[in-house]
Parts: sequence; structure tokens; C-alpha cells
Amino acid sequence: MHLKKPQEVLLLGPGPSPVHPRVLEAMGQHTLGHLDPDFFQIMDQTNNLLRLVFETKNRITFPVSATGSAGMEAALVNILEPGDKAVIGVNGVFGQRMVDVASRCGAEVIEVDAEWGRPIDPELLEKTLSAQSKVKLVGVVHAETSTGVQQPLEPVVDVVRKFDALLLVDAVTSLGGLPVAVDRRDLDIVYSGNQKCLGAPPGLAPITFGERALEKFQERKSKVQSWYLDLSFLTRYWGEERFYHHTAPINMIYALFEALSMIKEEGLEDRFARHSLHSKALIAGLKALGVNTVVSEQHRLPSLNAVWIPEGIDDAQLRSSLRRDHLIEIGGGLGPFKGKVWRIGLMGNGSRRENVERLLKALSEILNNLGHKCSGEEALSEAGKIYQ
Amino acid sequence: MHLKKPQEVLLLGPGPSPVHPRVLEAMGQHTLGHLDPDFFQIMDQTNNLLRLVFETKNRITFPVSATGSAGMEAALVNILEPGDKAVIGVNGVFGQRMVDVASRCGAEVIEVDAEWGRPIDPELLEKTLSAQSKVKLVGVVHAETSTGVQQPLEPVVDVVRKFDALLLVDAVTSLGGLPVAVDRRDLDIVYSGNQKCLGAPPGLAPITFGERALEKFQERKSKVQSWYLDLSFLTRYWGEERFYHHTAPINMIYALFEALSMIKEEGLEDRFARHSLHSKALIAGLKALGVNTVVSEQHRLPSLNAVWIPEGIDDAQLRSSLRRDHLIEIGGGLGPFKGKVWRIGLMGNGSRRENVERLLKALSEILNNLGHKCSGEEALSEAGKIYQ
Repeated sequence: MHLKKPQEVLLLGPGPSPVHPRVLEAMGQHTLGHLDPDFFQIMDQTNNLLRLVFETKNRITFPVSATGSAGMEAALVNILEPGDKAVIGVNGVFGQRMVDVASRCGAEVIEVDAEWGRPIDPELLEKTLSAQSKVKLVGVVHAETSTGVQQPLEPVVDVVRKFDALLLVDAVTSLGGLPVAVDRRDLDIVYSGNQKCLGAPPGLAPITFGERALEKFQERKSKVQSWYLDLSFLTRYWGEERFYHHTAPINMIYALFEALSMIKEEGLEDRFARHSLHSKALIAGLKALGVNTVVSEQHRLPSLNAVWIPEGIDDAQLRSSLRRDHLIEIGGGLGPFKGKVWRIGLMGNGSRRENVERLLKALSEILNNLGHKCSGEEALSEAGKIYQ
Repeated sequence: MHLKKPQEVLLLGPGPSPVHPRVLEAMGQHTLGHLDPDFFQIMDQTNNLLRLVFETKNRITFPVSATGSAGMEAALVNILEPGDKAVIGVNGVFGQRMVDVASRCGAEVIEVDAEWGRPIDPELLEKTLSAQSKVKLVGVVHAETSTGVQQPLEPVVDVVRKFDALLLVDAVTSLGGLPVAVDRRDLDIVYSGNQKCLGAPPGLAPITFGERALEKFQERKSKVQSWYLDLSFLTRYWGEERFYHHTAPINMIYALFEALSMIKEEGLEDRFARHSLHSKALIAGLKALGVNTVVSEQHRLPSLNAVWIPEGIDDAQLRSSLRRDHLIEIGGGLGPFKGKVWRIGLMGNGSRRENVERLLKALSEILNNLGHKCSGEEALSEAGKIYQ
């Protein structure tokens, strides 16, 4: 191998999350053809495992052959046509991205804003929808990776169902780490990414479309602007017909299959509990270090913990020392949070006690070096109380 | 691992091609963050290796984070705006696909057609361009994977340079297997796919944009319709700025890096000669079996050999026996070639004497079983003459 062996950096940023050796081993298996009968079986099994994780019976459930953001684009280009109206909740980078992508479909986009660090207010959403006619789609981000906010979905569904609109949910940083529950919550279109709570390397965007969304798709008057993401082709390849569209990223699908198998083995409930537990321990430990969360407890994501950088600490200096001296990656802030916030991911295979403790130790060491006095022992003790 | 170990099928179809164990090993390495300093180095090195294989100094040369067809879409959506005119050469599935993608950009598309199995006539192209005003882009397929035709590029460049149009070239089935030579031939935009002559698993679409194309991009009046493929974002992530856009498919890039390193080790000239040699041997052997090529010698692709299915032989029966009993995949025909043509790929790591011989032996056995009398020994002897 000529590639310089990558260092084993512990990935506790906003994704990618640490990939289990089993998943890497699966990815490195012999490449089958994209029209091979054995590969068709793997496709079917992968889709079944995705249905399990999405908690849906949706027929149209498959991984889009590109990264998470292409899942967002696939959802929007297949539904929105020029002149359609979309209402998008914006409380961070990914809501803003949805606005951008929807606008590029020629849709009229109405934003429902909330402060960064807070969820979208369902009452404001209802007010906005009431003031509009014929809104085709409402989009919200379940897990805002830029702020660590978890959007409560039930109140949003309740509002949207009062209108004849589809509900699109970005579950990139939630699927596999906290309940998305597509069918129980009656969500119309949901997409995610491989590299967060699912625990596979980046490269695929699992997506699911419910019947209501497919009806709207059938009613389209114009062609989908993206050939690559056109659902009418994708469903023919991923469905029984196996009609050639593009060459699927075979080995990425092996990896996703294996990561999903590991989720099935662990069980969804246990996995959600694990994500919740380690996030709580991390936050308790960080608090002891004088590092406080951005989001109130009620709306906190277990998978992505946004915290305020203590006063006087240089963001870049700390993160580069953490990466260089301790081989740990955490994320910096985006947009208005740049230089002010760290984003600490405990996702998938990364959500483990040893990782929480390793990070707390490393952080306390560097913080002390940079003049922010704090006790690593106390942090570990506070985290330990959560584990009792 | 829960994934059932995929069988080692010898991939001699239209792609994916056999992936070398070194490439699979590289892909299975520890996943780094997409903003990790060590990963940035791998990105730069990968782009340098791509420049070597494209034979270009183009600044904007990188792998699009999706499969080959997304490379086509990336090229077209970044250049074409509603109302623009594009002239596309159509002599197979992939030219037709280019027409479809270009139309979805709102462009007026004028086709220059040729019979399946023949290249586009440069005189007809010139006549078409002369009859139009303000054509922004001309698109041709260098290696038509559906027919095995190699489009001579020099005459096309000569014609296009007489007009103020960009030349877009699909090099999906040629890059790394025969000369694409972007700078020497003065091509404006060229894309390819990982999984053909480059010898990596499917999942990335290497692309390069020359300065003339970038100027046209800068002059755009409207936003690019695809957020995911918007060059203004992609160049900021792949360039020095490292501005976050999407999470790159890290492990796929490891694989591409390793596959490109192997090309550099082998040397382009030797690699092209290898592809040419084994294709000639295969064709000589097939001829001895009574299996004849679709394309005349002058326009034949060394990477993809299209041959007529002998009369009386059932396509599906033969290919499924080849796959089941001999663990070899070859491709069937598309569109008008369905049931009439086989597509035999000798690409990248697949283009080797032992593969040619294994296929000839297997084919002769099955053909005889199906009532087409032929001599496997004679086929091997004819192929052997090429190797002398």
C-alpha cells in the first residue's frame, strides 16, 4: 500500500464517527458487479435493515449513491417544481442549506426562523402555514448538527397534518442514535447519512419516501432537474425491475449493510439508551471542567453536544493540540458559532464510556495548560456518577 | 462480519472492473475526518495523481463525491443555463444520457447522431455547428460503453475550436486505459468514473475543468441548479480554502489514491500498451470461436469489447452459466443491442493474459454445450499469437 497509513484519530466531531473494524472489513470485500444476482440480494437486505432503523414499512427506502447532503437534494428535487411553495425551519446551517437547495428547485421558500441553539416553534410554523396557500412541503431538521438542537417532531407533525403539505425531515445526525420512528410519527420523507449514528464511512445517504410523498411525485408536471437523483430511475434500479441507472457504490453498500447489521444486533432501544447515557456523562464531566452546553436539556441531542468554549481559550489552539497530542478530533463552530462553540459528537461506535473519559482527561490537561484551571479528576468523578 | 463473503467473480463486464487487493486494503483503513490535516494531504496527493492520469495541469481537478454519471451531471449543470444551446454527439446510451441531463438544465439540445457502433462524424458536427448560433457546449463520449466505440478526439477538437464553444468529453471507460491527454488535445471539461480503467471500486467521478470552462462558469447569470455539484462550493473545499461543503467519502478517496498510485507505478504508456495488447488477444481468440466484433478495428476501444452473440445462442443462458459455473461476469447489450451483443471489459486490473485465457476457455465450453461448435484450443492458440 502506498497510502500512508492514516493515524487512528478518535472521531468525536460532528461526523464522520469512528468506524468499527467489522464495517471496514466488510467494505474491503471483493467488489461484485452492480447487476450481479448476489449483489441484488445485498441491496434487498440493506433496504430491509434500513426499514428497521427508520422504523418504517415504506416500500421506497434505499441509500442514495452520494453523501448526506445529496440525500437532502434528492428529497427536494423530486418533490419541488418551479413555483411550488416550501416552508423551511431554519435554526442552523442545515436548515439554511435546505432553503438554498429548495430555492434552486425554483420553489418559493418561506423561512420559519429560530435562534441558533433553539428548536423551531410549532406555533410560529402554524401561523406561517395559515398565512400561505398551497404549501407543498414543510422541511425541518431533526438533529441540527451545527447547534446540537433536537427538534421535537410530534408537534411539527400535528401542525403540518392540518394542511395538505408533505413533511420532510433531515435525520442526518439522529438516525440510529435516537428515535426517528418514521411510521409512528407519520413523516413523509426522511434522509440521513452513513457517517453519523449509523457508524459507516461517509458516502451514502439513506432515504425513505412514504406513500403521500410518492403521490405528489407522481403528480409532477416537469422532469426532475437532477437525472442522477431522479426517483423514477432510482426506484426501478432499487426495486424489483433492476433497471440499470448508474453503477452503485458496491463496497460502500457492503459497509452500510454491516453497520446496519450491528445496529440490529444491538437493538434500537439499547442503542438509543447508550447514546443518551454517554452524552449525559460527557455533559456532567464537561460541566465540572467549566464547559457548558449551548442547548437546554429538553432539546439537547445525545449524538452532538454543542458547548461554549470557555472564556480566554483559543479554539484553534485547543483543537489542534487535542488532535496532535491526544489523537482526538472534535468540531469547531459554524457561522455565528465559529470560535465560540465546540461540537462534540458521540455517535454510533463513538458513543462509549472509554471515549468520554479519554476526552475529559485530554481536555482538562489542555485547558489547564492554556490557563483555564480545572480538575480532570473531578470531571471523571462527575461523569462516573452518571454511570452508577 | 455478517455480510456473506462475496464470491470472487472475475469482472469482465462494462465495469466495475476487478479491484486489486492493495486498493481494497487502502479503502479499509481507519476513517479520518473530512477536515483533518492529514486528510487534506491525501486530497492534494489524489488530485495530483488525477492530473497525471488526465495529463493536465488544470487547477480544478478532483473527484466528485458520487459515481460516474454524477460526473456527467456535474459537468453539465455547472456550464449550462436555461436557454443555452448544447450540441451532443449521440451514438449510444451515454450520449443519449448526456442529452437527457443537458435538457434538464433547461438547455436547447441539438443532437448529432451516428449509428450504434460508429463514431460521430466530425463533418456532420461541423455542419450542425455552422447551422447554429451561439452554441455554448459540445459534448462527445470518448469511450461509448454501450457500443465499444472509441471517438477520435482530435478531429472533434479541430471542429469545435472554429466556434466559441466548450468541448465536454465523457472519458468514463477510457481514463487510465487509453490516452485521454486533456492538455495536449485541448479538452475543456472531462469526467470519468473510478470503476473502469482506473481500477477502484465505484463511488467517485474524477473531473477536470480547464480555464476556458471556468471562465464560462464565472459568467453564469443563475445559480447552479444542483447545490451538491455546485463548482463554486466544491472548489473551495478541494482548493486551499478547505471550506466545508459536504462530508467527502473519505475511504473511497483512499481507494482512488491507491489505484492512481498503481497507475503511476506502472506508467501511463505501459498501461495503455497493456490494455491494447490484451484486447487484441481477446479479439483474435473470440474470432476463432466465431464471435465477431461490433466495431471496426480503427474505432475499437481496448477497454470495452463489444461482440455479436453467435446466431442461435441465448444471451441470458450463456451469461448466467458463465457467472454461475465459471465465476466470470460479462455484460449484455443495452437498448437496440439487447440480446444481440456482449460487452467484454478488459479494464484496469482486469486487462491481463490469464483473464483473456480464462474467458476464452469458459466461453468455448459453454458455446459448445449450447450447440455452437468451436475449438477452445484454437482460440487460445490465436490469442497466443498476439502475445508472441
